[in-house]
Amino acid sequence: MDIKVTLNPNPKAKPTDTSALGFGQIFTDHMFRWTWNSEEGWHNPRIVPFENLSIHPASTVLHYGSEIFEGLKAYRRADGKVQMFRPIENIRRMNNSAERLCLPQMPEEDLMQALVEFVRLEQDWTPSDKGTSLYLRPFMFGNDESLGVHAVHNAEFIIIASPVGSYYKEGLNPVKIMIEDQDVRAVRGGTGYAKCGGNYAASNRAGERAEQQGYSQVLWLDGVERKYIEEVGAMNVMFKINGEIVTPKLTGSILPGITRKSCIEFLKSEGIEVSERLLSVEELAQAMTDGTLEEAWGCGTAAVISPIGELCYKDHKYIINNNEIGELSQHLYDSITGIQWGEVEDKFGWIVEV
Amino acid sequence: MDIKVTLNPNPKAKPTDTSALGFGQIFTDHMFRWTWNSEEGWHNPRIVPFENLSIHPASTVLHYGSEIFEGLKAYRRADGKVQMFRPIENIRRMNNSAERLCLPQMPEEDLMQALVEFVRLEQDWTPSDKGTSLYLRPFMFGNDESLGVHAVHNAEFIIIASPVGSYYKEGLNPVKIMIEDQDVRAVRGGTGYAKCGGNYAASNRAGERAEQQGYSQVLWLDGVERKYIEEVGAMNVMFKINGEIVTPKLTGSILPGITRKSCIEFLKSEGIEVSERLLSVEELAQAMTDGTLEEAWGCGTAAVISPIGELCYKDHKYIINNNEIGELSQHLYDSITGIQWGEVEDKFGWIVEV
Ligand SMILES: Cc1ncc(COP(=O)(O)O)c(C=O)c1O
Ligand SMILES: Cc1ncc(COP(=O)(O)O)c(C=O)c1O
Repeated sequence: MDIKVTLNPNPKAKPTDTSALGFGQIFTDHMFRWTWNSEEGWHNPRIVPFENLSIHPASTVLHYGSEIFEGLKAYRRADGKVQMFRPIENIRRMNNSAERLCLPQMPEEDLMQALVEFVRLEQDWTPSDKGTSLYLRPFMFGNDESLGVHAVHNAEFIIIASPVGSYYKEGLNPVKIMIEDQDVRAVRGGTGYAKCGGNYAASNRAGERAEQQGYSQVLWLDGVERKYIEEVGAMNVMFKINGEIVTPKLTGSILPGITRKSCIEFLKSEGIEVSERLLSVEELAQAMTDGTLEEAWGCGTAAVISPIGELCYKDHKYIINNNEIGELSQHLYDSITGIQWGEVEDKFGWIVEV
Repeated sequence: MDIKVTLNPNPKAKPTDTSALGFGQIFTDHMFRWTWNSEEGWHNPRIVPFENLSIHPASTVLHYGSEIFEGLKAYRRADGKVQMFRPIENIRRMNNSAERLCLPQMPEEDLMQALVEFVRLEQDWTPSDKGTSLYLRPFMFGNDESLGVHAVHNAEFIIIASPVGSYYKEGLNPVKIMIEDQDVRAVRGGTGYAKCGGNYAASNRAGERAEQQGYSQVLWLDGVERKYIEEVGAMNVMFKINGEIVTPKLTGSILPGITRKSCIEFLKSEGIEVSERLLSVEELAQAMTDGTLEEAWGCGTAAVISPIGELCYKDHKYIINNNEIGELSQHLYDSITGIQWGEVEDKFGWIVEV
């Protein structure tokens, strides 16, 4: 497809102090936009200056949660080149999310082209300090200008980009996570497997409560039996119990994380199987009590691997692996970030240069 | 509070043919706006010309479903005056929705004042033909300009208004509803009781499938056991089974409808009890098979009372009450709309004149 480019006549100064970047706070000079309606389909792909959107007060996205998004990163290699990690996985997940929410499908090749051309234009915004990257946020929303509740006839797809700082300024520090037993994030048959706004709106209250008690995120239980471990606020979870690597299986209410998938595939390449199965909170509590829980970690694009040093369940606090990062967590972190930053050979075909 | 008014210098012509109005398609000349941030609280209440909103591409509402809304109507009485139906109930429900989504609470009196002053200014937009009204859509959304997932520090509250046509142009026609056994709208512990965007986003796919098969909406089952009747797309449901009036009890995954509440209170005033209890789909199917289901109706602000003439469950079609409106449904419709349009005395204190 032919992407029309309108350059920003007033480019901003790029941040020099990457230690102050944080996450998703400053944005690059441009954005990619693509418009869809039920008559014309996708049309007018364009890169334009980053600016506020003009949205009708009755637009579907403001009322009926008609919104999906993705999150992936572009990394600067030592040789100065910029590369993305498994963007095709984000593209496919976004189309799955679109199907669940009755938003339009996007041709995979067009979306890949949009990502590559957009990142190429903005590549100077990719910081080079250790642990930093250019976060890419593709998102799509329903944009009918009327209040009827139904599948939309108009949608917008946008990509914005934000240089982000290192998740681990002081090294790979274990996080404290609280197991949530009141609020539910998602249920089988619902939208849990889709990356859509409503799942995050449902998560905020428990997240706030946990934060007030000094925990960084919550660990969700399934919505049917309130018994099986699902995922953390913005990460999937993995455990090493008595030598077995366990991660909750994808039952429909869990986001199928790309970092999760990469961990499973990477470990398999080293001859280590990951059991994707149901894991009850009782089994986990038992393993924490009898000391067979060797390691626990979250995995997601933001932190890649986030060792879990403490889990709280029903006011009981369990310390995991002495609140230190485990050997396998460290190995996974080094291996996957090594591929992402181009320091380790990519035997998997995961990397896309821009 | 002091609401600053900026009049629209280019008011539109009001629609003359109310039969073509539809629902939520055209809007009045103004909107009410109110801004909140965590330092100042609610500030700058204002009525301004209706226009597109300028929204940052990273705004919370576009990514994380941080949005709640209400729907109520202003009705024109025979004497020309305009009145609202139980607005305090919408105000309270909106604050409950806000609590679930970590959006800010609004003082009830201020919100009531905003509704009254806004409707007073726009009252000429209230049509007077039978069955027509001025639909009011208060909504609030999180508006931080960054991609972090957490409770917001900025929010916007807006009221827009739309003259809407009669729901029943050809009389009170029974609708066909399909019982959904795949997708789930909401689950206990989730956001079902809140009027928030994510619930509607989760509903679209099943709604579309039902529509393609000739059904107007779906009837949801509970997300835990997939067994108990919950509610219809945008209405609560009531049944008359063997003389008993039954409506699903509010377990947390059902929207607590104001029309539902009004039906219960109105019937109580006539000495008729409504059982708020669990109602399984098997019990309902049995009642349809053995003929003890006498009437079924949906209740919500849009249609007030919507008789259900056919229910489809697992490819089995059940015709209810000969596909005709039942006596009690008709009585409820006449009584409640009578109060709403000022034709029947309001013994309940439900009416607020503007
Ligand atoms: C709810 C949730 N689970 C898991 C993940 C991890 O997915 P990924 O590895 O694709 O980033 C994310 C997001 O990053 C998330 O938001
Ligand atoms: C999901 C849902 N249930 C029920 C209702 C009925 O509520 P009310 O009677 O307050 O309009 C509505 C909306 O109107 C709704 O959206």
